[in-house]
Amino acid sequence: MSIAPTSDYTIPTNETVNKAVMLMTKNDLRVVEIDMPQPERDHVQVQVKCTGICGSDMHLCRHGEIGIFASTQPLILGHESAGVVTALGEGVTSLKVGDRVALEAGIPCSSCDQCMMGRYHLCPEVVFKSTPPHHGQLAKYITHPARWLHKIPETISYEEGALLEPLSVAVAAVDRVRVKFGQSLLITGCGPIGLLVLAVARVAGVHPIVMTDVQQNRLDYAKKMGATETYKIVPGQSELQTAKEIRALFHNSEGAECVLECTGIESSFRTAIMATRDAGTCCLVGVGKNDQTIPVNNFAMREVDIRGLFRYHHTYPRAIGLISSGMLDIKHMVTHRFEFDDALKAFDTVGDSSANALKVQIMN
Amino acid sequence: MSIAPTSDYTIPTNETVNKAVMLMTKNDLRVVEIDMPQPERDHVQVQVKCTGICGSDMHLCRHGEIGIFASTQPLILGHESAGVVTALGEGVTSLKVGDRVALEAGIPCSSCDQCMMGRYHLCPEVVFKSTPPHHGQLAKYITHPARWLHKIPETISYEEGALLEPLSVAVAAVDRVRVKFGQSLLITGCGPIGLLVLAVARVAGVHPIVMTDVQQNRLDYAKKMGATETYKIVPGQSELQTAKEIRALFHNSEGAECVLECTGIESSFRTAIMATRDAGTCCLVGVGKNDQTIPVNNFAMREVDIRGLFRYHHTYPRAIGLISSGMLDIKHMVTHRFEFDDALKAFDTVGDSSANALKVQIMN
Amino acid sequence: MSIAPTSDYTIPTNETVNKAVMLMTKNDLRVVEIDMPQPERDHVQVQVKCTGICGSDMHLCRHGEIGIFASTQPLILGHESAGVVTALGEGVTSLKVGDRVALEAGIPCSSCDQCMMGRYHLCPEVVFKSTPPHHGQLAKYITHPARWLHKIPETISYEEGALLEPLSVAVAAVDRVRVKFGQSLLITGCGPIGLLVLAVARVAGVHPIVMTDVQQNRLDYAKKMGATETYKIVPGQSELQTAKEIRALFHNSEGAECVLECTGIESSFRTAIMATRDAGTCCLVGVGKNDQTIPVNNFAMREVDIRGLFRYHHTYPRAIGLISSGMLDIKHMVTHRFEFDDALKAFDTVGDSSANALKVQIMN
Amino acid sequence: MSIAPTSDYTIPTNETVNKAVMLMTKNDLRVVEIDMPQPERDHVQVQVKCTGICGSDMHLCRHGEIGIFASTQPLILGHESAGVVTALGEGVTSLKVGDRVALEAGIPCSSCDQCMMGRYHLCPEVVFKSTPPHHGQLAKYITHPARWLHKIPETISYEEGALLEPLSVAVAAVDRVRVKFGQSLLITGCGPIGLLVLAVARVAGVHPIVMTDVQQNRLDYAKKMGATETYKIVPGQSELQTAKEIRALFHNSEGAECVLECTGIESSFRTAIMATRDAGTCCLVGVGKNDQTIPVNNFAMREVDIRGLFRYHHTYPRAIGLISSGMLDIKHMVTHRFEFDDALKAFDTVGDSSANALKVQIMN
Repeated sequence: MSIAPTSDYTIPTNETVNKAVMLMTKNDLRVVEIDMPQPERDHVQVQVKCTGICGSDMHLCRHGEIGIFASTQPLILGHESAGVVTALGEGVTSLKVGDRVALEAGIPCSSCDQCMMGRYHLCPEVVFKSTPPHHGQLAKYITHPARWLHKIPETISYEEGALLEPLSVAVAAVDRVRVKFGQSLLITGCGPIGLLVLAVARVAGVHPIVMTDVQQNRLDYAKKMGATETYKIVPGQSELQTAKEIRALFHNSEGAECVLECTGIESSFRTAIMATRDAGTCCLVGVGKNDQTIPVNNFAMREVDIRGLFRYHHTYPRAIGLISSGMLDIKHMVTHRFEFDDALKAFDTVGDSSANALKVQIMN
Repeated sequence: MSIAPTSDYTIPTNETVNKAVMLMTKNDLRVVEIDMPQPERDHVQVQVKCTGICGSDMHLCRHGEIGIFASTQPLILGHESAGVVTALGEGVTSLKVGDRVALEAGIPCSSCDQCMMGRYHLCPEVVFKSTPPHHGQLAKYITHPARWLHKIPETISYEEGALLEPLSVAVAAVDRVRVKFGQSLLITGCGPIGLLVLAVARVAGVHPIVMTDVQQNRLDYAKKMGATETYKIVPGQSELQTAKEIRALFHNSEGAECVLECTGIESSFRTAIMATRDAGTCCLVGVGKNDQTIPVNNFAMREVDIRGLFRYHHTYPRAIGLISSGMLDIKHMVTHRFEFDDALKAFDTVGDSSANALKVQIMN
Repeated sequence: MSIAPTSDYTIPTNETVNKAVMLMTKNDLRVVEIDMPQPERDHVQVQVKCTGICGSDMHLCRHGEIGIFASTQPLILGHESAGVVTALGEGVTSLKVGDRVALEAGIPCSSCDQCMMGRYHLCPEVVFKSTPPHHGQLAKYITHPARWLHKIPETISYEEGALLEPLSVAVAAVDRVRVKFGQSLLITGCGPIGLLVLAVARVAGVHPIVMTDVQQNRLDYAKKMGATETYKIVPGQSELQTAKEIRALFHNSEGAECVLECTGIESSFRTAIMATRDAGTCCLVGVGKNDQTIPVNNFAMREVDIRGLFRYHHTYPRAIGLISSGMLDIKHMVTHRFEFDDALKAFDTVGDSSANALKVQIMN
Repeated sequence: MSIAPTSDYTIPTNETVNKAVMLMTKNDLRVVEIDMPQPERDHVQVQVKCTGICGSDMHLCRHGEIGIFASTQPLILGHESAGVVTALGEGVTSLKVGDRVALEAGIPCSSCDQCMMGRYHLCPEVVFKSTPPHHGQLAKYITHPARWLHKIPETISYEEGALLEPLSVAVAAVDRVRVKFGQSLLITGCGPIGLLVLAVARVAGVHPIVMTDVQQNRLDYAKKMGATETYKIVPGQSELQTAKEIRALFHNSEGAECVLECTGIESSFRTAIMATRDAGTCCLVGVGKNDQTIPVNNFAMREVDIRGLFRYHHTYPRAIGLISSGMLDIKHMVTHRFEFDDALKAFDTVGDSSANALKVQIMN
């Protein structure tokens, strides 16, 4: 059962018990006691206050693997978290006990070429929380490198702090498609990521924004959130016709200057490409099957760039600024909240399509 | 004397009289009768409904020249206009009589290298209205190439349509400094251009935005328009100290990622450079004297890029979309409105600092 | 039968006979007499001195169509030409009779959004020579807009002048993949375009350059032209293994920072994607079938950008400079030359794979 | 006295004596014995085989400071070095004893925002060798982090390895001014950096390249190295006239698309700006006085970008590839070589303008 949003927390004193939400093996998720972690050099101990459940956590739970990563031993889930600093490791000067923080879930090596090129999200040695074999953050206490914690002000709740992780994907998506204020955007798919992308694109002054989906209620929600136009996908209609009708929603029927594909579905990707304006950019955010049949001449001869997105980088400080300033409000994305000991119910809710959950969070 | 804003107009029939606001010679501005222009091929005749007065019009009026352009014969002033199409020249298919339009004031050759490179604003053959020797738009009827008219919907008033021209400078400035949503910006100067830049930067999701000025009332207005912070310049204080205090208003006291200098004053430009974050960009929007003494090592050894802005390009469609969507509201920038025959009073108002005019427009 | 290269020409006087190589209908190519064209305003009359045969001309000849363009009436072929100015239309000041010129084959509208954005090659109204329904340049005399003629100095022969057209594709390809000097490049396919791309990449300081092909003699030619390494494609070997072996030829076995796919073959494109370094760019130059099955997660999750190329823009002046300076030598690409009246033999040579033709040109 | 170039070295065994070229105080430079350094974790011990003398070393020697960095205690000079690995610290796996390496002289923190953004050269915590208070590399043995050593193949001599450091500045300069192959470049100043920039620009396919200087012999050397044109600065001639004459050396007298200013002299910078083509880029490489009077409207109203360069980043692997491939040959830049114990003579040679030294190196 859901609980009310929590707006304040106190720092625990002398807490000695630690617990985690651990995937023992496929479909066997448990709340278990674990050791209290002590921060090593340059790390801090964090009492995790709120963690959202990501689709990839759910996928791991049900399949025991995600993409090329298989979980061969018990794994703590979760990578969308905010919390409060409870202890400092040696050498940490940028934080103090009591600081409220969001946790950037990927910890790069800071040494390889990708890291030094500014693309630390592509670091081949990155430790990403809850991606096997690395434990996640669904514990009462964890440790984390100080460098990858981001202070959040009092004006940002822990719920919002935890939302910063999926929001980061949306920020990275809007960055990567390179849409500018006053330019047009098509977002295919009104799931949580599509809606977060919409929220970010709105803040970035993108206009018009057209959103597509197969479900009218999701389109209605998108419209309420500020989509300029919505288009309901007609199952069975040809991709060409669908693309044509979507193009017609843009200036001179030329299609969208930028497109963010947020479903991972082949036909949606194909349509997205065909609905992109000449010389525009179509970026894949949704993840689907690897081999997809793509209209190659359609994009190549119109010099439409095709891009993909992998997680995010350099997004936290910007996202924190936008939320704390009030320019970006995504609190409404959290539809369900659960106590830590009810974590399994939280996962059930994510898995229950009738729950209409956008974002489910687990409190501590 | 000011008049109320006008929200609707009718298309004149059989109008035969045309009038213009003409600068006969320095300080001799008159409302005179002129011929009714007939549109040549690919041109249309426009009844100008509203024209704003630009600082450059005022400068021409008082000095008889602007920069390298001297007015050696009577010149019609004005280049910030919107109107309604009243007649079509041969070959025009993109517009019809009765269309409401904003006039892009610079008409490039569409053939030179700069034009074909996408930088038509730098076309060496550009005809820019009211820049000698080219007549401006402060007439009841003018002709203009159809290509450089931009349709405006009913939701945009002629006043707003006329504002699109100075707004274009602000759009181009935010483009040129390459600030992204969630990045920081310093705007030096709260005059009309600084405030329009603020409005555009807000829409583009720039945050935080710090504005500086010497006058508290202008800072207050900027704050009301959404500036995150304001900083009152202390006359006589060293540039280094001023820059340091401005830098302190940004994350880690590192200064602004991007800076738009909107005063044209040397000391402001120097301070702006010093207040730019390492690897940031400082773009000059304000125009001042040519030779300025600049802290060269300061910008070069920190790899701060220095840019300048010349007018605008590709701004009208984006700006029209932002205004018509309600995302960008700049109507409040028009502080004074005058009837066509009172054009001289309009210029007097611009020249009267006690009038606190932001934008003065002449109606027709 | 081939003829020797010609190094000089004289301007004809009082020539009244004009001829063209015209495709009457599929597989019916003839040398026919046509009217002598007179240059209209802003156009000039050119005596075409040399025209290369492009694969697309050959395709038109054999199939009567190319892509979406079908030839429904007799069509003059050819779009790779250089010649000499023989008469000026009204208004032309940039050229004079006797000027030696290369003909840029696409004539954009110079007014639409794409043109004004600097992407005139994407102009939807472009007139591209020898693409139905627009006649090509395989005539003794044609007219052409002065704006799209490029003067060539005496140091550039007409053969080289005609090569500027296919070379432009290579210049555009190297531009579009955004490879920098000292960065690595993979070129798949050692056909004429692959080899021209190699030549341009060499001049641009790209290093290392790995080239692939199925034929050893083509790889040997590439090596002689300066490819750092070559890789012979093993038919039947898995794409994954091929990609792995190609990756191993680059620094740390990370693959190529940039890839130009010059075959248009699906398996080559798939391999090219897999052989691109994380965060690199894979650009499609070769044209093949529209629907191709692509390893989407492979490129998307590694943030490899996929691009396509359509013709070229802004390439002629740069290419002329590089050739006239001696930095770029591509004369050796012309393997066969024919007299104008032997044009049909020229096409036969292009169609005869045993001829090992790289570029076949028709002289006048 | 100069010595012949050395092409091979052996790895010393049981060497216990270490020496350094140390600046005791202003103008008091000595070769002294120092401790043999032992490599800490992730570091290696390097026997330095060759070190070039930089203008900044000479400046430190004569003035005891450079810019904001004052040398308050004895300082080992030198930061242009190559050597051989003689011992490994704990954790080093990327190198082995006997590896020939070039030393990247700046060691960034790998953690700050600038480092993680890909701009590690702007790291505020960077340790740059021989910039006070950090010792330099003019010693027989030093230690260095393995991450910032770059293996050089047998085809690159230690002299060339040491040249990689100043060459890196040239590579970074060509990167930063964003000149593309086939675009035009003006290089002001034919000193060592100007000539290295020329060498890199040539490799990158830049054309034409115009170089300026006040000395004819330097211009002659530039011409021999491949400058397209040279222009001898006429002392006393107006900057405007000089700029006009330089512009005339480019296409349509429009000036250079990109300019690299390599003198640090105010009048040269002013001229460089005026000689830059509209919408071009003028990048300052030479370092001079901080306050310089710049023609602000000249660059701003023509949208010429002004940039500066600070050292280099990500240049070593690319430069090593270009040299080892034979595409870039800069060996001729080393005009004088000295034994380690003759280091003071080496500095004397740098300081003696009659020696016409381009690069003076000290061997070991």
